[in-house]
Amino acid sequence: MSSWPHPRMRGRVAYGGDYNPEQWTPDVWREDIELMRSAGVTMVTIGLWNWAEVEPREGVYDFSRLDEVVGLLHEAGIAIDLGTPTASPPSWFFATYPHARVVTRDGVPLGFGSRGMASPSSPDYRRAAIGIADALARRYGDHPAVVLWHVHNEYGAPVGEDYSEHAVREFRRWLQERYGSLEALNHAWGTAFWGQRYDDWEHLGLPGPTPSAPNPGQQLDFRRFTDHQLRACYLAERDAIRAHAAQPITTNFMAANCPTTDLWAWAREVDVVSNDHYLTAAEVEPEVGLALAADLTRSVAGGAPWLLMEHSTSGVNWQPRNVAKRPGEMRRNSLAHVARGSDAVLFFQWRASRVGAEKFHSAMLPHGGTDTRGWREVVELGREVGALGQVAGSRVHADVAILWDTESFWAQDLPWRPSVDLDPHERIRTYHERLWRDGLTVDLAHPGADLSGYRLVLAPASYLLTRDHAANLTRYVETGGTLLVGCFSAVVNENDAVHEGGFLDPLAEVLGVRVHEHLPLREGESIEIDLAGQPVPGTIWQEDVALEGATAVGSYRDGYAPGGPAITRHRHGAGIGWYVSACPDVAGLATVLAGVYRDAGLTTAEHPGVEIVTRVGAESSFMFVINHTDREVRVPIDGNPLLGTAPVDGVLPVAPGDVAVVHHTQAAVVAATT
Amino acid sequence: MSSWPHPRMRGRVAYGGDYNPEQWTPDVWREDIELMRSAGVTMVTIGLWNWAEVEPREGVYDFSRLDEVVGLLHEAGIAIDLGTPTASPPSWFFATYPHARVVTRDGVPLGFGSRGMASPSSPDYRRAAIGIADALARRYGDHPAVVLWHVHNEYGAPVGEDYSEHAVREFRRWLQERYGSLEALNHAWGTAFWGQRYDDWEHLGLPGPTPSAPNPGQQLDFRRFTDHQLRACYLAERDAIRAHAAQPITTNFMAANCPTTDLWAWAREVDVVSNDHYLTAAEVEPEVGLALAADLTRSVAGGAPWLLMEHSTSGVNWQPRNVAKRPGEMRRNSLAHVARGSDAVLFFQWRASRVGAEKFHSAMLPHGGTDTRGWREVVELGREVGALGQVAGSRVHADVAILWDTESFWAQDLPWRPSVDLDPHERIRTYHERLWRDGLTVDLAHPGADLSGYRLVLAPASYLLTRDHAANLTRYVETGGTLLVGCFSAVVNENDAVHEGGFLDPLAEVLGVRVHEHLPLREGESIEIDLAGQPVPGTIWQEDVALEGATAVGSYRDGYAPGGPAITRHRHGAGIGWYVSACPDVAGLATVLAGVYRDAGLTTAEHPGVEIVTRVGAESSFMFVINHTDREVRVPIDGNPLLGTAPVDGVLPVAPGDVAVVHHTQAAVVAATT
Amino acid sequence: MSSWPHPRMRGRVAYGGDYNPEQWTPDVWREDIELMRSAGVTMVTIGLWNWAEVEPREGVYDFSRLDEVVGLLHEAGIAIDLGTPTASPPSWFFATYPHARVVTRDGVPLGFGSRGMASPSSPDYRRAAIGIADALARRYGDHPAVVLWHVHNEYGAPVGEDYSEHAVREFRRWLQERYGSLEALNHAWGTAFWGQRYDDWEHLGLPGPTPSAPNPGQQLDFRRFTDHQLRACYLAERDAIRAHAAQPITTNFMAANCPTTDLWAWAREVDVVSNDHYLTAAEVEPEVGLALAADLTRSVAGGAPWLLMEHSTSGVNWQPRNVAKRPGEMRRNSLAHVARGSDAVLFFQWRASRVGAEKFHSAMLPHGGTDTRGWREVVELGREVGALGQVAGSRVHADVAILWDTESFWAQDLPWRPSVDLDPHERIRTYHERLWRDGLTVDLAHPGADLSGYRLVLAPASYLLTRDHAANLTRYVETGGTLLVGCFSAVVNENDAVHEGGFLDPLAEVLGVRVHEHLPLREGESIEIDLAGQPVPGTIWQEDVALEGATAVGSYRDGYAPGGPAITRHRHGAGIGWYVSACPDVAGLATVLAGVYRDAGLTTAEHPGVEIVTRVGAESSFMFVINHTDREVRVPIDGNPLLGTAPVDGVLPVAPGDVAVVHHTQAAVVAATT
Repeated sequence: MSSWPHPRMRGRVAYGGDYNPEQWTPDVWREDIELMRSAGVTMVTIGLWNWAEVEPREGVYDFSRLDEVVGLLHEAGIAIDLGTPTASPPSWFFATYPHARVVTRDGVPLGFGSRGMASPSSPDYRRAAIGIADALARRYGDHPAVVLWHVHNEYGAPVGEDYSEHAVREFRRWLQERYGSLEALNHAWGTAFWGQRYDDWEHLGLPGPTPSAPNPGQQLDFRRFTDHQLRACYLAERDAIRAHAAQPITTNFMAANCPTTDLWAWAREVDVVSNDHYLTAAEVEPEVGLALAADLTRSVAGGAPWLLMEHSTSGVNWQPRNVAKRPGEMRRNSLAHVARGSDAVLFFQWRASRVGAEKFHSAMLPHGGTDTRGWREVVELGREVGALGQVAGSRVHADVAILWDTESFWAQDLPWRPSVDLDPHERIRTYHERLWRDGLTVDLAHPGADLSGYRLVLAPASYLLTRDHAANLTRYVETGGTLLVGCFSAVVNENDAVHEGGFLDPLAEVLGVRVHEHLPLREGESIEIDLAGQPVPGTIWQEDVALEGATAVGSYRDGYAPGGPAITRHRHGAGIGWYVSACPDVAGLATVLAGVYRDAGLTTAEHPGVEIVTRVGAESSFMFVINHTDREVRVPIDGNPLLGTAPVDGVLPVAPGDVAVVHHTQAAVVAATT
Repeated sequence: MSSWPHPRMRGRVAYGGDYNPEQWTPDVWREDIELMRSAGVTMVTIGLWNWAEVEPREGVYDFSRLDEVVGLLHEAGIAIDLGTPTASPPSWFFATYPHARVVTRDGVPLGFGSRGMASPSSPDYRRAAIGIADALARRYGDHPAVVLWHVHNEYGAPVGEDYSEHAVREFRRWLQERYGSLEALNHAWGTAFWGQRYDDWEHLGLPGPTPSAPNPGQQLDFRRFTDHQLRACYLAERDAIRAHAAQPITTNFMAANCPTTDLWAWAREVDVVSNDHYLTAAEVEPEVGLALAADLTRSVAGGAPWLLMEHSTSGVNWQPRNVAKRPGEMRRNSLAHVARGSDAVLFFQWRASRVGAEKFHSAMLPHGGTDTRGWREVVELGREVGALGQVAGSRVHADVAILWDTESFWAQDLPWRPSVDLDPHERIRTYHERLWRDGLTVDLAHPGADLSGYRLVLAPASYLLTRDHAANLTRYVETGGTLLVGCFSAVVNENDAVHEGGFLDPLAEVLGVRVHEHLPLREGESIEIDLAGQPVPGTIWQEDVALEGATAVGSYRDGYAPGGPAITRHRHGAGIGWYVSACPDVAGLATVLAGVYRDAGLTTAEHPGVEIVTRVGAESSFMFVINHTDREVRVPIDGNPLLGTAPVDGVLPVAPGDVAVVHHTQAAVVAATT
Repeated sequence: MSSWPHPRMRGRVAYGGDYNPEQWTPDVWREDIELMRSAGVTMVTIGLWNWAEVEPREGVYDFSRLDEVVGLLHEAGIAIDLGTPTASPPSWFFATYPHARVVTRDGVPLGFGSRGMASPSSPDYRRAAIGIADALARRYGDHPAVVLWHVHNEYGAPVGEDYSEHAVREFRRWLQERYGSLEALNHAWGTAFWGQRYDDWEHLGLPGPTPSAPNPGQQLDFRRFTDHQLRACYLAERDAIRAHAAQPITTNFMAANCPTTDLWAWAREVDVVSNDHYLTAAEVEPEVGLALAADLTRSVAGGAPWLLMEHSTSGVNWQPRNVAKRPGEMRRNSLAHVARGSDAVLFFQWRASRVGAEKFHSAMLPHGGTDTRGWREVVELGREVGALGQVAGSRVHADVAILWDTESFWAQDLPWRPSVDLDPHERIRTYHERLWRDGLTVDLAHPGADLSGYRLVLAPASYLLTRDHAANLTRYVETGGTLLVGCFSAVVNENDAVHEGGFLDPLAEVLGVRVHEHLPLREGESIEIDLAGQPVPGTIWQEDVALEGATAVGSYRDGYAPGGPAITRHRHGAGIGWYVSACPDVAGLATVLAGVYRDAGLTTAEHPGVEIVTRVGAESSFMFVINHTDREVRVPIDGNPLLGTAPVDGVLPVAPGDVAVVHHTQAAVVAATT
């Protein structure tokens, strides 16, 4: 196993992006490389979409054009992240192996002519993917320009679930391995309900179209299986490369935005975590969602530096309204990723495509060429990223963790829950946004992780919580931690079966409450909580909460449980357990969390709209101050700016929309700002 | 043929619910039965979902667990409604007979792993269903604990329509029987339109995907066929049971909520009508819809007592937002059903399922166990239901009937009608709600029924009305009845062909009007009717009405026919015919119906928000007073309360949310309250 | 080749409609013809839906009933437009050739029982269609009553696109013809993007379901192919008829409302253009859309008179809410079509169908018969149309053209454009409505057409604009024309590839601007343009515009490019080029176009809500004045009214909702009113 950074990239924040020379003629390659150099590009990703070029017929390879591009980049001193093109098999593949196509839930096979892999369960696809990965590794495994391998592209997008015959067969095999016996499977899935018992492995199928809701256990396992199959494809390619190549290997994640992959499991299998991130254009403050994605990426990486593999210079092309970035926004986005742990600023893509489905995606080199605002900002950003080399390798410290468990999201996403309005991602985003606005740096954490390093752990949406994980949270509180649990948590176990003892039973002791009934609100309905005299409005949800030792800090003024406990606090062991049985919004959470912060010994920042994050290296720390507002902010700090020239003496003025990075040789500032 | 009540249940309002012991271990069964006894449970339904348990392989039966449960219940004195499990065939069935799967209109077969029957036209399914029904009847046909047979579950849900090859073949056969000749079919369907003539029975198909709207006659007949096939399944099982069992037989309807079954036809085939009812959580006053469903159930039962086979203690799990019931609401719901003719208060289900798709459905025994509000209310209700034994067998009298014709709903539901906003169910609900608020008890009636017992008949939405049925309505008026017909009625005949003579032609004489043109309004548009100086607003619809003898009681102030007749009144024979060519809302109908009530000699109640219904027995009557408001009401009445203790002397005070049942030994009160 | 008018129809504006005698018995035929005569009907269309009647078995013909109808009409002096029934093949056809069914994108074959042709690529369908056309032409090719042949019905509706195996095969053949080599195809489609290269013609498929967006070039070519295949069907029937018949031949278009046909190409293949038009009921002023459809029909006819083949007397049946026409509206609609070039007023249909999917469509003879407002208006209109014979053959002159290019609409409609809100049809409708309100008569023009006759050319939405067409626009300006180009124009070439040089590059010289970036707005967001001090609001869209010689007449006050150019004006050669980078609404366009009109030397009318259009004949002109308002208007004019009796002396008063047609013996008025 290898690791990042590759020696060639040490002490550098990589700058560059996806490069698709197969779309261009060699004269354009030469112009590209010259412009890359003038933009400060240090690394590009190639090879993601050229399978048809390098293997024009099955088993026949032609590396001539790729060799030439690799050579040109090498000569220019630009490092290469070399992709495998397995996200888009060639036309010959689909013509030869039509049964390898992904099939939708409704039975429609998805054909050639777009992008998207074949069935992850197809043995023909698996063999072909290993074949091209092997051929590439043999050819470029010791090439000095190649500093990273990039397997496939965005596993799980645009397709993850597959209902092909291959998938049926592999699902049965996977279930046999998981359960060992039909008795165990029948028990786990609760097939006594609605007479769904299986007496023969061959009767098992995928959760396809059925007259009513399919078995939840089957559905949940199908999601696990889908994730497993995608990862098996990755592992097969990775191992094929490793056999001939020593460089680190990654595959690009889509943190916070790919429902089919469990990144905690994936992150264990890469040498360096890399991530693609795109703003949600409909959001007025998309930087908040960016922070969550970056925090999650860093967290699955175990805190290690990671690579921002893709983002965009401006608008994308696949959203309903592809809003462009305002002047300065690309820079703020890029540096926010670096602030939160990225050691790279990479874009999709280098040169805007004239053809194909993504021609309206912004690029480092726009359609309008170099006499455009876009290009000028890219060049300027390249210069700045080049000045941030010292930051590479440093880490971000967080005092707060929010639980993030993909299995729980999968389970809660199944049909027939109490309310379609209750969305775990919305809940987590809302709590995270509150902390972002309060200037607190946050990790995401798996519920089974070691939480002892955090002052505060939030579980806004832990619908599926195993007894083991509940015990982990209980231990955390017993040893002095502060825990906040949100509504509709600890409802089911790993089989989506309601916990014996009822909702929230596994946390009843640590929280001192039980939930007797869920009380979803009608569409548009709202309720109010009386929190020590302060009103906190809520929508979507209430619960009938029974106190078993906890104190009702807030109670419902109205709704279905007037007078009942809404927000509770319970001392357990050396720590405190809070329970919030409703859905306050970001503003309401300010009231709710005030007491929680107090219990956790946390203080909030004083600069609303300003993002302050610190990266800590072996000997230095780097404070990133990103001003998202349209007014100047003044941050009390000393130090040397990495961006800008004048040393900071007591107060750092940051202009509207500007970013400052201040360098300290000791780590003292960390505590003060997080 | 047998009938309800079974001797064991005489003089009792049954209390209990669905019980699914196959989901639990025997130790839980024993706990269940003990708790059932403490809750006053007198009857449970078992056996609806255990096909895989009792017939684990085709033709191989294993009744051991079922025997044990039946025995335990019998010992505990709890009567059994024994189900056939044919709503959910086992995995071996679908694996052995894949062609027996229901196929959707788009050609997708619906697989195993959920619930839902096989194709009702599949001979394999028919044979298998008869087989298990026969086996159960042979084993339990003379068991003293079994007081009722419960065939299948909710025919028509979750699937009714089937586009499988079996369905094509049976549809052709059904059409041959219905029409005798292709000439007759071509004429009925109007196949001269768009060149759709058939010259060969084998060319006939189902109304599947076509480039434009399929033939309406074909579509209407497909709905009739679907209903017929489902009923044929029921009849086959019923007859198989009857061969070996003497107990009454039912199947649970979903009155007002199952678009694929024509309950008038079904009710003739059961020994006792039973019904499942669930509140629509999105409604703020769901008790109004409950009353309609209960009235419809009683009406299809021909006025005889019926069984509330399923309802819920609190929220369900399959609506978008499953609102819980407020304290007291379960009790009010249960007793409202009894007031409207039910001799049972049964729930889905006894014990909340820990697993499967319905784990979030409320139950008599909640996930939280016996130390919950839910359980305490269940026990208290059981006590009260136990005190209502005298009510069993009594009947409800109604002076008003609303026409309800499933065939007309089917026809109006076909595509390409004048306005998508005009919904016959909405119209009927709106008129029914007006009468509910006015304290009038209402039957639903088929347009071909004997209407002579009613003072007032409303036909709010009789789009398809045959000349025979129109003649029936005409006779009703001629002999002194008051009839109100709503807009877009008597438009087509039984083949969905516009009546010769134009819209409303069959009622032109009795109503004294003709409709020259439908005038749908744009989305959100509204108009106003001048009704003797009072404004009545309308949405969705107007008509160009021509008077042919009637008086324009109300006329349009605006819209597409300003000054034209909107509401007309016509003396015909000894009675009166009203026509309402618009869509007033519940409030507007108060103005419209004032004169109609006067014509019919009806007076309205004085207690808004209070539901008063009287059941009349051979020697006694029982007045149910249900206070849905948050204030006390005082009802002038004498009598002895069945619930509560103090005799009523002149005035009955009913607390907010409370229910009173007052017992009289003579039937005098009836007239005063209905 | 023949041409319209057939000698029998010379000097007449035809009056009548679709007649479907196959739905009725012979006694009704006789009543029909009598009523036709009393209504002034001069021409009816028959034979569109009787394939099953005239060819009851493959190759066996039975013309007996058709002969009788033709004879009756002939005797009554009513001319016949004889249809071929190929829009609805008989049941035997689909039973014999199941593979001839159209297949949807999801793979669902569309069956019999509705209407809609078979696969346009099916050789069996082609042969059968030619067969029936040939048989009809042989029998009626020299019948004196037949004055026009009407091939098929509304090609492209209800289905155009077909994903059957026949379509795959023909698509490959069509591509081979179009591109000659795979190299050319790969280049045109840009298959280097996402690795989509083809090395074998047999690997090519239709743009069916794929994991992500299919190749845009493939999709665009599939739309071209679909249009081609439909037209090939038409041509095959046309040529079969021509072999035996001398009468003119048409097929009815659906101008402005059929996305699958490129009417510029179709119009070249018919002897006379005919069009079906239906109001969009949801529109409060549907006459505006009517004008656009009529202008487009006239324009594709090259300015020659055309035939309004179908419209409705009142509401239709296939819209969500089929709003009826108000009194006088049918007349205004009919005469507006005549004003804009139609030499016919024809309806769907003569007698309302009692059966089938269109029974709620209004007709000349309503369900209510002759004692209805509808019938009386039909008779009165027939009288008036009969008085307009002199108008036949005259033409409409327009000073303004709006570009209309179906290929550009197809391309812009593909997925993954910058904003789903930007709709070329909406843009064209908005500009056209502005001109309609300003009293300017407008042609639609293909971007490659000779534009020299227009004072002003508008290109509101020319997303796909080839360099050749851009050169045509440039020449138009250079020689003195005024050109206005709307946003998101000249973006791609004929392969949907972004123009080299960037967006708008082909028009950069004539407009003096470049577009560096598209700036879509968020949903509901709006911006404001400062146009010489006047505010012009915009929604949906902005652009980052760089001046290269043009003057910024208006600039953005806010949004993503505050201060940037919004509306520019550029003198080029002898003319002026305007660029509007935003989306003003109809009101805002009044401000924007004021200066444009000035440049073009156009003056606007003074009568808002009044439509004034002039038709010019060889010796006379006819001024149509249609008052859509609820107040009288007074138009300054002399002349002799064709409708009404008193000669006009200086001022023509037109009552609310009324229409006047004034006749002049010289053409002087033309300039003053257009």
